[in-house]
Amino acid sequence: MIMEKGMSSVEVLPSKSSQVMAVKAMVKEHETELIQKEKRVGFVLVHAGAGYHSESKAKEYKHVCKRACQKAIEKLQAGALATDAVTAALIELEDSPFTNAGMGSNLNLLGEIECDASIMDGKSLNFGAVGALSGIKNPVSVANRLLCEGQKGKLSAGRIPPCFLVGEGAYRWAVDHGIPACSPGIMTTRFSLAAFKRNKRKLELAEKVETDLIQLKKRRQSSEKENDSGTLDTVGAVVVDQEGNVAAAVSSGGLALKHPGRVGQAALYGCGCWAENIGVHNPYSTAVSTSGSPFLANEDGVLGGVIVLRSCRCSADPDSLPEKQTLLVEFLWSHTTESMCVGYMSAQDGKAKTHISRLPPGAVAGQSVAIEGGVCRLESPAN
Amino acid sequence: MIMEKGMSSVEVLPSKSSQVMAVKAMVKEHETELIQKEKRVGFVLVHAGAGYHSESKAKEYKHVCKRACQKAIEKLQAGALATDAVTAALIELEDSPFTNAGMGSNLNLLGEIECDASIMDGKSLNFGAVGALSGIKNPVSVANRLLCEGQKGKLSAGRIPPCFLVGEGAYRWAVDHGIPACSPGIMTTRFSLAAFKRNKRKLELAEKVETDLIQLKKRRQSSEKENDSGTLDTVGAVVVDQEGNVAAAVSSGGLALKHPGRVGQAALYGCGCWAENIGVHNPYSTAVSTSGSPFLANEDGVLGGVIVLRSCRCSADPDSLPEKQTLLVEFLWSHTTESMCVGYMSAQDGKAKTHISRLPPGAVAGQSVAIEGGVCRLESPAN
Repeated sequence: MIMEKGMSSVEVLPSKSSQVMAVKAMVKEHETELIQKEKRVGFVLVHAGAGYHSESKAKEYKHVCKRACQKAIEKLQAGALATDAVTAALIELEDSPFTNAGMGSNLNLLGEIECDASIMDGKSLNFGAVGALSGIKNPVSVANRLLCEGQKGKLSAGRIPPCFLVGEGAYRWAVDHGIPACSPGIMTTRFSLAAFKRNKRKLELAEKVETDLIQLKKRRQSSEKENDSGTLDTVGAVVVDQEGNVAAAVSSGGLALKHPGRVGQAALYGCGCWAENIGVHNPYSTAVSTSGSPFLANEDGVLGGVIVLRSCRCSADPDSLPEKQTLLVEFLWSHTTESMCVGYMSAQDGKAKTHISRLPPGAVAGQSVAIEGGVCRLESPAN
Repeated sequence: MIMEKGMSSVEVLPSKSSQVMAVKAMVKEHETELIQKEKRVGFVLVHAGAGYHSESKAKEYKHVCKRACQKAIEKLQAGALATDAVTAALIELEDSPFTNAGMGSNLNLLGEIECDASIMDGKSLNFGAVGALSGIKNPVSVANRLLCEGQKGKLSAGRIPPCFLVGEGAYRWAVDHGIPACSPGIMTTRFSLAAFKRNKRKLELAEKVETDLIQLKKRRQSSEKENDSGTLDTVGAVVVDQEGNVAAAVSSGGLALKHPGRVGQAALYGCGCWAENIGVHNPYSTAVSTSGSPFLANEDGVLGGVIVLRSCRCSADPDSLPEKQTLLVEFLWSHTTESMCVGYMSAQDGKAKTHISRLPPGAVAGQSVAIEGGVCRLESPAN
């Protein structure tokens, strides 16, 4: 995964489709290395969704990625945990009406918002998640609170604390823990409501036509592309703090017109995010946040995206103390969707860098993959 | 995993506890090999929970394991899919008032039953799961129906079918798909209600004492053993059919006095069960069903159990056609709990074999592991 300057290679996804196009997607090293000579505090990489980003919306997505990075870095500078920093980034992404997470999420079949979110702490390997959660503005804050409460140990009478709560029970737990309720109406935006009405009309039309024709089999295979807009706009973030602790989080409003109660990968242990610190058998701290679904594996192509960060300590002097060593942070983003909007920032940057990564011209979404990344060195505070 | 006759070894679980006892647990080959010379039809292995089984209850658990095996073999003999056979076994286990799954499940903090279940098909790698589901007698039948519906492809207007549904939405989906609703009162047994009342009294007492003492920290660490009874009695089954297709399923009522909306590993992709047929890079079909939780990793010991089955085709004549080859089935069960009740059966057996596996005398639950297993040869129908 370490990318040397100028390195490139070709990656093509395997596909079950008979119309596979072998499309080349360059592995690019993104922009120049970020070299910090001052104290390290940490690094954050976020994404606002893998999907399709029109030029007109690009500005909005870049803006929210920038703000999300800044929130995470502010937290790290104030001495917060990596998990709290990654939560701060996610809250910013959820609050944007342009992402499919928190505010402005896709509406389900009944016109309701039901969100999934999860977070993982690389130090303890603890995990917190919510699924099909309604009535809470920031689902990731409930996931983070579940993680925090889980780290406090057992509840009264030896009960094991929950780490994954869904639906009404998740809502009640959140409110009982002081997280404010939010009227569902506030979370529905003009845009998400219009999309819902448009999708509902399409659905009714499709079902009417299909019923008339009594072609059940055809019904199942039809309209492959109709429901694409906005369906995979999961948001995510990965963080490393100055101690080398990593955290990852993910949040999603799920599929448009999904069945009520549907839980997607953003809530699932080992699926939506992963974070794991350096260990005895493991020289790297790694944090990953994904978008798209392993359950889409029987589609013709696989639509998704991922952000990855890994870090290790390195030093010219092998005898130097760990806290004196440089923290090397490698990061990348990759997607099989048309485009993916990312932002990244280290504590020494005045502001975040943002970027909309796109498949090369002619590449077919779901059948080719774009990979870009970079390297950042965080020097020891003592150097 | 292949166990030669008479082989034994020593396994001790790592533990964070300062009072680790290195206890030897023998790896036993269980009973004799089952050799079938007639047509193969398949093999099933089930368990009725890893936990503590008193001698007085042993008979009940063995009975339900026997019936579960018979149901699965009947399905296979009738030409059913491996997934339908594994579902039939699970339904029998859920219907027993003595298991913590379906009927007689642990009650949550509000006195309600909320069940988790999942199933995986080794051929398609498709998965179906429900979490925190109330009002349905057999949660595994909803999981299996989700898997079946998922295999039919997209819904109208290109919507991706759900594979994991929770709570009220899962209930509505089940009823809409013709699965009968069941009054929660029917699923609550005299035993589960008595356990709930006992646990509630313990909890109220514990909280009263703790509040009086205002020792929040102590509260969290106290009563490690109080809530043990019945908390991990997940049930599971693994099946291989005569074509070598495997399936696995798991079902659980979850922890006693759990928070409403809590979803445990039995519902989680990659956690509660796994099934994967022979593939290009994979000479074995494998099916696994687990009990106990990866989220218990920060306990002093890890309490859990697992049943595993793997099969491969083998023949003295390497040029023989796959359908003429013998299907070799290796199977095992392993647990760190006091005991685990299992049953297994091949289509040629008149009845299932059942067994309560126990840790050796002196072994401490959570700190040592018992492993037992066997081998079964399913000859080709043509031989």
